Amino acid sequence: MWDTLWVDANLATMAPGKPYGAIERGAVAAKDGRIAWIGYAADLPKPPDELAHDVRRCNNSWITPGLVDCHTHLVFGGDRAREFELRLEGASYEEIARAGGGIVSTVAATRAATREELTESAALRLAGLTREGVTTVEVKSGYGLDLENELKMLRAAGDLAVRGNVRVKRTFLGLHALPLEFKDDRAAYVQLVADVMIPAVAAEGAADAVDAFCENIGFTTEEVDYVFSAARASGLEVKLHAEQLSNQHGSALAARYKALSADHLEYLDDAGIVAMAENGTVAVLLPGAFYFLREKQLPPIDTLRKAGVRMAVASDCNPGTSPMTSPLMALNMACTLFRLTPEEALAGITREGARALGILDEAGTLEIGKAADLAIWDVKSPAELSYWLGAPLLRERVFAGRVV
Amino acid sequence: MWDTLWVDANLATMAPGKPYGAIERGAVAAKDGRIAWIGYAADLPKPPDELAHDVRRCNNSWITPGLVDCHTHLVFGGDRAREFELRLEGASYEEIARAGGGIVSTVAATRAATREELTESAALRLAGLTREGVTTVEVKSGYGLDLENELKMLRAAGDLAVRGNVRVKRTFLGLHALPLEFKDDRAAYVQLVADVMIPAVAAEGAADAVDAFCENIGFTTEEVDYVFSAARASGLEVKLHAEQLSNQHGSALAARYKALSADHLEYLDDAGIVAMAENGTVAVLLPGAFYFLREKQLPPIDTLRKAGVRMAVASDCNPGTSPMTSPLMALNMACTLFRLTPEEALAGITREGARALGILDEAGTLEIGKAADLAIWDVKSPAELSYWLGAPLLRERVFAGRVV
Ligand SMILES: [Zn+2]
Ligand SMILES: [Zn+2]
Repeated sequence: MWDTLWVDANLATMAPGKPYGAIERGAVAAKDGRIAWIGYAADLPKPPDELAHDVRRCNNSWITPGLVDCHTHLVFGGDRAREFELRLEGASYEEIARAGGGIVSTVAATRAATREELTESAALRLAGLTREGVTTVEVKSGYGLDLENELKMLRAAGDLAVRGNVRVKRTFLGLHALPLEFKDDRAAYVQLVADVMIPAVAAEGAADAVDAFCENIGFTTEEVDYVFSAARASGLEVKLHAEQLSNQHGSALAARYKALSADHLEYLDDAGIVAMAENGTVAVLLPGAFYFLREKQLPPIDTLRKAGVRMAVASDCNPGTSPMTSPLMALNMACTLFRLTPEEALAGITREGARALGILDEAGTLEIGKAADLAIWDVKSPAELSYWLGAPLLRERVFAGRVV
Repeated sequence: MWDTLWVDANLATMAPGKPYGAIERGAVAAKDGRIAWIGYAADLPKPPDELAHDVRRCNNSWITPGLVDCHTHLVFGGDRAREFELRLEGASYEEIARAGGGIVSTVAATRAATREELTESAALRLAGLTREGVTTVEVKSGYGLDLENELKMLRAAGDLAVRGNVRVKRTFLGLHALPLEFKDDRAAYVQLVADVMIPAVAAEGAADAVDAFCENIGFTTEEVDYVFSAARASGLEVKLHAEQLSNQHGSALAARYKALSADHLEYLDDAGIVAMAENGTVAVLLPGAFYFLREKQLPPIDTLRKAGVRMAVASDCNPGTSPMTSPLMALNMACTLFRLTPEEALAGITREGARALGILDEAGTLEIGKAADLAIWDVKSPAELSYWLGAPLLRERVFAGRVV
């Protein structure tokens, strides 16, 4: 006997094969938190009520894998609404800096907050994600910039899992910005990240991966290289913020490390694409930041597509460049701004998001044996998920077999 | 004794004067559906519990006027998700037309739907608006394009008021597109709209205003002029879709008719701005369509501002060019894409939205005697309403004094 069986539904399994991996008039069953059966309803071995304790009729809605938001900075102190407002009121860079703007203000607010306060404020943002079907979310550190505060952020991110009925994958982003106290000694900070913070984070099991912001206003490929070596030595995966504002060839470096993903990629060149394709590094597209910063340079979508690089889509939720807590908005922006097809966009925030987190064996598609993470939508076609903007489309969210 | 008193709140009254018309540590009371008292909590004449039957403590949230979405096409049959998908899959214009794309498909689906079906599907979209604080919504006809179906749409829009606990203002948009059956006789359709439909709509009281789509792919200023004359003769207000894709000088025409608003305005010129300023015609900005169509030409915001033209912001919710049911998304787009300040954007979807509907004496600001339409937000500053994207910020919605 299964625990739960969903019927009167269409399934966008997102498994490879036909468009959306679609199974119209399908059914899916969960037992002990995993997908125990999936297929055409007509192929069910017995009448539904004899098969499961709880039979849920879905009114011909569409069921997708629970969404996987593979790139967020969900945990942070304060917000940057005042900076947003000052900028639109015409304040100069200096005036904004005087008013405490920029990432410095987020670092200060994050350091000042307790672990509980960070969890509390992140939970509000997480609610934005989960009310639109997210069941797995990646959360990065990077606003603490010292061991104590980076660990505090990662622990707060871990606390979210229980509160949000969500799977949390954590990433240590020590090389996010240079903390003020090291402004005259970059090398010492990079060394601290590599030699002290990464081993400590790994020892606690506080993160699954190490990320860095490789940019002319961030860190160089040499600095990233040093830190990635330390990550690998500590048994952690790597990924990289790369080619967002300029081409630093970070993606090629990341690919050489067999990084899970390289993210942003507006200025990615062909050599980087080839390196990513060869090493199975996923391209994580972040249209929210592109939109919010009013960028003009598009990531090389068509070349990525032709090279067979997998493309994920994520919210990039963060206070400075993408204060967005809507995966559906990210889907629409991926289509409208980046010209992904609705199927590519949905795959990007399910299957490819899971691939970018190294958990494709566990989530990202509807297949037997994977976690029973489902999003059930009041739509007549899966394309509607990318088409509407801001509509309340989620009918039911299921995490590890439980309706939550 | 008041019916309800809200305390422990900050008020963005949006009344003229200081920024946001703010009253920090304020209180607002409702009696018989109207605002009976508003001011600083310290000035309340007695302890709250002695003043109202229901005292609602708001945890220092911000209270704004209920939002006024002054330009929508919320009632329509079908959707255009498949067309959206085909386009992104690279289908040609002909292929999309063959698959039944374009406004023609919406007209066919709208004509095929019953009044009840139209109300039902529009109610789902309305839920997107109301869950983000909308208490007044304008709804246009324009997908029926014959008297029977235009009236069906307007009646469906009227039915929404009860279902959604929302104030509905209805607009007859006969000159939205030329129906296929008149494709060889434009003049006959324009005459039908002016001579038959408008009097019938007015006689039923099915609309408050008449709108038209003045554009090179729509209707000429001469045709609009003819229809506006009929509207005035029937005692209806007028407003106009103008200068969205090209400069047709429609705004100046609308201003001469003392139109409530001219809407879109990307290609508006200085003469149009002067005419609008002189006649008190509101500029309704629709950044959702600008975003969805990936337009490059911005409306002349700064010139409008300097000329003292009032600027409203609306969702333009419609299936073809702005499938957006989020007023907060419209606020963010107004700031991010059009560079309005958060205060201008919020005024645009409250006070100026009400002005654009001719109901500023009834809604749009928190002032004594107006309808007690409130939106109560879990934010620390009103700028957050424009800053976040897709976040669940609404704490409570109040329509005509009732928490709904
Ligand atoms: Zn990021
Ligand atoms: Zn419109």
